[in-house]
Amino acid sequence: MADPKSTQTRPFAAVILAAGKGTRMKSDLHKVLHPIAGRPMLSHLMASADLLGPAAKVVVVGAGRDQVERQVADAAKVVVQEPQLGTGHAVQQAEAALGDFDGDVLVLYGDVPLVRAETMARMLDRLNADDRPASVVLGFRPTDPLAYGRIIAEDGVVAKMVEFKDASPAERAVTLCNSGLMAVRGRDLWALLARVGNDNAAGEYYLPDIVMLAAADGRRSAVIEAEAWEVAGVNSRAELAGVEAEWQQRRRAQAMADGATLIAPETVWFAHDTAIGRDVVIEPQVFFGPGVSIGDRVTIHGFSHIEGATVRNGAQIGPYARLRPGADVGEKAKVGNFVEMKKARLGTGAKANHLTYLGDADVGEGANIGAGTITCNYDGYFKYPTKIGAGAFIGSNSALVAPVAIGDGAIVGAGSVVTRDVPADALGVARGAQEIKTGWAARFRAAMAAKKKAG
Amino acid sequence: MADPKSTQTRPFAAVILAAGKGTRMKSDLHKVLHPIAGRPMLSHLMASADLLGPAAKVVVVGAGRDQVERQVADAAKVVVQEPQLGTGHAVQQAEAALGDFDGDVLVLYGDVPLVRAETMARMLDRLNADDRPASVVLGFRPTDPLAYGRIIAEDGVVAKMVEFKDASPAERAVTLCNSGLMAVRGRDLWALLARVGNDNAAGEYYLPDIVMLAAADGRRSAVIEAEAWEVAGVNSRAELAGVEAEWQQRRRAQAMADGATLIAPETVWFAHDTAIGRDVVIEPQVFFGPGVSIGDRVTIHGFSHIEGATVRNGAQIGPYARLRPGADVGEKAKVGNFVEMKKARLGTGAKANHLTYLGDADVGEGANIGAGTITCNYDGYFKYPTKIGAGAFIGSNSALVAPVAIGDGAIVGAGSVVTRDVPADALGVARGAQEIKTGWAARFRAAMAAKKKAG
Amino acid sequence: MADPKSTQTRPFAAVILAAGKGTRMKSDLHKVLHPIAGRPMLSHLMASADLLGPAAKVVVVGAGRDQVERQVADAAKVVVQEPQLGTGHAVQQAEAALGDFDGDVLVLYGDVPLVRAETMARMLDRLNADDRPASVVLGFRPTDPLAYGRIIAEDGVVAKMVEFKDASPAERAVTLCNSGLMAVRGRDLWALLARVGNDNAAGEYYLPDIVMLAAADGRRSAVIEAEAWEVAGVNSRAELAGVEAEWQQRRRAQAMADGATLIAPETVWFAHDTAIGRDVVIEPQVFFGPGVSIGDRVTIHGFSHIEGATVRNGAQIGPYARLRPGADVGEKAKVGNFVEMKKARLGTGAKANHLTYLGDADVGEGANIGAGTITCNYDGYFKYPTKIGAGAFIGSNSALVAPVAIGDGAIVGAGSVVTRDVPADALGVARGAQEIKTGWAARFRAAMAAKKKAG
Repeated sequence: MADPKSTQTRPFAAVILAAGKGTRMKSDLHKVLHPIAGRPMLSHLMASADLLGPAAKVVVVGAGRDQVERQVADAAKVVVQEPQLGTGHAVQQAEAALGDFDGDVLVLYGDVPLVRAETMARMLDRLNADDRPASVVLGFRPTDPLAYGRIIAEDGVVAKMVEFKDASPAERAVTLCNSGLMAVRGRDLWALLARVGNDNAAGEYYLPDIVMLAAADGRRSAVIEAEAWEVAGVNSRAELAGVEAEWQQRRRAQAMADGATLIAPETVWFAHDTAIGRDVVIEPQVFFGPGVSIGDRVTIHGFSHIEGATVRNGAQIGPYARLRPGADVGEKAKVGNFVEMKKARLGTGAKANHLTYLGDADVGEGANIGAGTITCNYDGYFKYPTKIGAGAFIGSNSALVAPVAIGDGAIVGAGSVVTRDVPADALGVARGAQEIKTGWAARFRAAMAAKKKAG
Repeated sequence: MADPKSTQTRPFAAVILAAGKGTRMKSDLHKVLHPIAGRPMLSHLMASADLLGPAAKVVVVGAGRDQVERQVADAAKVVVQEPQLGTGHAVQQAEAALGDFDGDVLVLYGDVPLVRAETMARMLDRLNADDRPASVVLGFRPTDPLAYGRIIAEDGVVAKMVEFKDASPAERAVTLCNSGLMAVRGRDLWALLARVGNDNAAGEYYLPDIVMLAAADGRRSAVIEAEAWEVAGVNSRAELAGVEAEWQQRRRAQAMADGATLIAPETVWFAHDTAIGRDVVIEPQVFFGPGVSIGDRVTIHGFSHIEGATVRNGAQIGPYARLRPGADVGEKAKVGNFVEMKKARLGTGAKANHLTYLGDADVGEGANIGAGTITCNYDGYFKYPTKIGAGAFIGSNSALVAPVAIGDGAIVGAGSVVTRDVPADALGVARGAQEIKTGWAARFRAAMAAKKKAG
Repeated sequence: MADPKSTQTRPFAAVILAAGKGTRMKSDLHKVLHPIAGRPMLSHLMASADLLGPAAKVVVVGAGRDQVERQVADAAKVVVQEPQLGTGHAVQQAEAALGDFDGDVLVLYGDVPLVRAETMARMLDRLNADDRPASVVLGFRPTDPLAYGRIIAEDGVVAKMVEFKDASPAERAVTLCNSGLMAVRGRDLWALLARVGNDNAAGEYYLPDIVMLAAADGRRSAVIEAEAWEVAGVNSRAELAGVEAEWQQRRRAQAMADGATLIAPETVWFAHDTAIGRDVVIEPQVFFGPGVSIGDRVTIHGFSHIEGATVRNGAQIGPYARLRPGADVGEKAKVGNFVEMKKARLGTGAKANHLTYLGDADVGEGANIGAGTITCNYDGYFKYPTKIGAGAFIGSNSALVAPVAIGDGAIVGAGSVVTRDVPADALGVARGAQEIKTGWAARFRAAMAAKKKAG
């Protein structure tokens, strides 16, 4: 995460507008709670703002207050805009929640999640520059400007904000578009908003109108520019996928720049907090959920699904490894194909190479878990621990019925159902005796073939 | 599927040309039987035509008649063009098969599979519009017109059809290209085709020549336009992949528009008939084969492979779930990693979370299938059912030897091989007694280490 | 592999420069050893040169000599450039290693791995054409020429080589760029290099300076052109991924042209030596490591990970099949989901369809390996073989403790732990007797529910 480098020291509050209906999402989940990289859009935005140490954060919602409150908990105040009379009106709903706060206000949008802290800092810095603009608007230059509102500006000073439909041909030719984000001193903001009218087709109160109201008072507003990807908005699932793709592309580039090989970068999905070491090799098709930390010199084979897991230096993962929360793979340990770990530790150099479930388990250094081993950790009511000692060898296709402990250096015979502890250096075996019935198979086949024929 | 909205009421027949050799496919499978989205190209085209209720469908093949007949069965007549003397000659082969049918004829191409019913309807409507054109040709405007034949037209009326090699520079600059598809009244078609000559380099009879023959009679032909992707043809496996990609891209966009989250849309593959509910979340890397229906609020984790399966509201699937035909996952049920279901029902809220095979099985509401459970449903000759009651608990690593029934609320001990029914509320357990051999492992290790050293 | 079609018969040596620090790779692995398609970049280049039968190959390294020597072994001489004073100086380091070799020298770059043998041959041919140029430089025309050095040439003869920073606007408008690759007669090369100076900002000796030195002697140099993708260089992991993507795209196109269906070509990864038959169908998401040979009419379902394996005609693989080195899947055999094979043969028509590990195993024709079967091939010290006869039937969830042999036509009962051989046509079974404890589950549930409530 780049250091935001803000030089401003005045306190600020973030007001995050999230009252849009999100109809095109066709979802029962509030639009701003749809995740990007495993984290709600709203949380991305709040995390970026938090890097600048806001005095307060207020989220303005329409419907879905409960969902949003559950998500933000104590991290922000949630206020309701009802009815929804435009962006200016929305920002006004935050005034009471901010009480006697007298710093700067940064207006963000819950469905514009990728704005960087660095960009927010530039907005606040510009607001507090020597020329003291009345407000700062954030512009961007999209590849295709479409019907975005245009910012007519010269030398960074706004001359006019104009909706596309009202713009002259010359104004439409301007490529600087309005993202909607603004920074305004609180006292200015409330005063200006009180003067905004709703004399327009929609009968709404528009936030950008404060720029022209300030201009009428002889006060200038400034514009700074963001990258277009930062201010991409999400109004549909297709746009959600587009913003996710943008985020992933940047994260992949960062992982490679930091010294990881991604054989097919476009097939590796990171979460917002994935940490990856150096000289890590990631084969095609790997998915990281939240909470993953990967050490140095780790190889992750394809088709691996990893979340909430720690993978230590030199470990080898997959293909087809499924690491769930609480998995801890030790140095130079190996987790092979069709192996699932959940709340389980694999010690240094230990191996679980095939078709295994390790749940609520602690496996010591250098232990070898045979193919098809299952820790039976659940009885339908409670979960129980399995402890496997250092250097132990669990024979293939064994079931370890927890709670149970296999001592250091102990061996479990293949195919055993282990219900009692096996002491260190002992052999534990639990299986039926083998019988041979000569000629039985030949007779069975003859009978079945006859039945099938009759059949 | 968009309603085709045809206003025409005259009966029509579809003639589908499929006599191309398909040499570049390098395949023993007839070109038009290569699948897109899990369905043969020819079937896509027939399904689209069927939306308009054709009076008859005739497929004209060269080689491979048997393959095509096996596929279409009674849905169309298959006639053979031998020798293959051009598209005009190919259409003529359908005349006898259509008998005394006296309606309109729509000429389609088996290797141009994505033409929409809506487009076919527009062709037929245009043919029957008040000005009664002699024929309707379907044009398109490719991104790069290359060497396609051009349609010189004004106000939707064809002035000239010209092969690229014969076209003047001005004609080559025209971007409207000929897809080859046509709609013609049957009686006109047969009369005009009879007059088509083969005085050209290839010595072939070309269908488009009827436009100029009609013009010579003073009868005008009309052109309407299709999207370029609709009329993309398949002559190689690369083009097959291109058409598949086009189809998938549209289907993904539709799924998102309908309210599903696709974290990485480009990694989800749909079949022609996949049905997806609302607020479904699909992680990266999911493949749907034919016959899948997914309810609302379902989460499908990555690396899942699903065909012929029903997944009900609120269920959770994967990662690494393999649902085969006849899998039925109940409401809020869970199918976890490395689990395969085939002809198996999982009741409401039931769980099969790890390393399990459920074949020919019926699992009751709320039952819990432990990790590593296998239904042994096959004896090499016949398949047998397994019934697991509501609320039953199958201990991990159990083998259920079918036919067998586990009663409601029964428990199977971990690691059991169950060969007889377990009554409701009973415990069934079948495993060997556990022995401990103290110090055995230490002695074994010493012996093996010595052997290894000895070499 | 295209036949290189060189008409030159003079002996040549390849000098491969690999002394770059590779700092941006952030890797402990030497840059030229990073793999493309499962093979080090350096090996790609050496393999291409080998198609032309070089008299010698010399690799010039800076740091990391040991790593490179381990890789190339006897296939090339490795010399060290220390200190690193430019490309001219680097080539000079090869002179001693080439001894009294008196043929042509081809200068290649270890981090420009995709240059085709055909292109190398064209360079050498041009050098030996009737006009006998002093040297041949390899140019290319990138989509965006950026800051590459330009080659000012007329009719294939170099007029000037100019660094971008020194180029005039007219020279910068030239689209022919310098790849750095050269062909020069050895005696010319050493003589010219001895005259190259280091009077430039970096104080380095530049190889391309020999072109101007030769010109000063009245000797002309020729330029020939390569495709831009061939001369793409790798200086970062992102560029490594870019070159990998380029390679994969070409290989996928080739596979399709050869008659394989790739439903989603962009999701199939080939290794440098993957061999694929005709009418093979590959579903989305398949990864091939090195050493794979796939026969005709094979279907490979999605999510399969295959390396070092032979798959014979008509076999079916996956989904989720993991074939490791030494896997040999017989004609019409089937390897299903969550199945791993390692040093294991599956005979004609044999099946291992679910959740199985076959290691060090030989499975006869038509045998059926039940779900959940595990070959227990390892005791922590040694690996042991399992032999399964033709037509044998291994019941589900069995563990076969190697060394062990199951005879032809024998049956192993489901859930057995087989420790002794089962004779042909016999039944082998080894499992515990089943007990039923009536009402036990109901009592257990009541007790646990009470505990949970108390809990």
